[in-house]
Amino acid sequence: MECALSSPLRAPSLSVIFPGNSSGRASSLHLRQLVGFRPSRCQKMFVPGFGEASPEAKAAAKLQHFFTFVAVKIVLAQLQSYNREAYEELMEFVSHNSLNDGDQFCSRLMRESPRHKGLALRIMEVRSAYSKRDFEWDNLQKLAYKMVDESNTRLMRDYVLETSHIEDK
Amino acid sequence: MECALSSPLRAPSLSVIFPGNSSGRASSLHLRQLVGFRPSRCQKMFVPGFGEASPEAKAAAKLQHFFTFVAVKIVLAQLQSYNREAYEELMEFVSHNSLNDGDQFCSRLMRESPRHKGLALRIMEVRSAYSKRDFEWDNLQKLAYKMVDESNTRLMRDYVLETSHIEDK
Repeated sequence: MECALSSPLRAPSLSVIFPGNSSGRASSLHLRQLVGFRPSRCQKMFVPGFGEASPEAKAAAKLQHFFTFVAVKIVLAQLQSYNREAYEELMEFVSHNSLNDGDQFCSRLMRESPRHKGLALRIMEVRSAYSKRDFEWDNLQKLAYKMVDESNTRLMRDYVLETSHIEDK
Repeated sequence: MECALSSPLRAPSLSVIFPGNSSGRASSLHLRQLVGFRPSRCQKMFVPGFGEASPEAKAAAKLQHFFTFVAVKIVLAQLQSYNREAYEELMEFVSHNSLNDGDQFCSRLMRESPRHKGLALRIMEVRSAYSKRDFEWDNLQKLAYKMVDESNTRLMRDYVLETSHIEDK
């Protein structure tokens, strides 16, 4: 997300105009005049205000918390059948500690007792293995595309239905 | 995530034992004896309690909210330089409405006024375009792997440092 130049050919309906980089744009245009026109390599929309982290890094951090949540579910299911004591200890801990921040959860679990430390190490191992081997990244991408499009259609359809209903009265 | 059989060869340190499918396991073992041993095609860990949605669908829904948040940031940056009025209207709306649920946010924005409806349609268009063209999915995957591993190392290092410090006293 380092670049902030847009091509008008790319997303004509969005009229992308970027603030605060007029000098960069001018020098880029000057360069184009010198070397002849070439389409810009970077055609991304400018995403402001992410500071040091890219949107991808922010999304990865969110996914990390999600993987911790999934790992806790996996470990609980494993323990339930062959180690009821550990299962109940972990359930008890989960009921009193939020899983919103995965790292904080693991950090607290490690410090609860030596037995809890073993569970925390196992959860950490499972979240790493799950994210690398089991999680279907291609499927995530396809589902995200589909969900965004379906949500957009639903929102517009609901709005049209609602407003036509009002006009019918 | 439909399958729940594991191979002991795959993750030996995790000792994956699955609850509630002993009969399925037994019949699978019986089948293997009949046809000769073959490694199971599905070697995934069993993730319980996700009901109808897969973990990938849950993660995609989370990403959808994130894309709406990013789209609002993109549209605000575009408006800031050439349409101050719309920029201030959207800023005002954002300050009073949570962006945690992207669809609810868009739904409310559409119903605020005809001008807000235009902004909502634009945000919906941007979130679709951003997720499909600009968002770096490969990068997300790499960053997620890296973050999980780095977090695991940091958590264990912090714990060791803390406990060695106590022993030094």
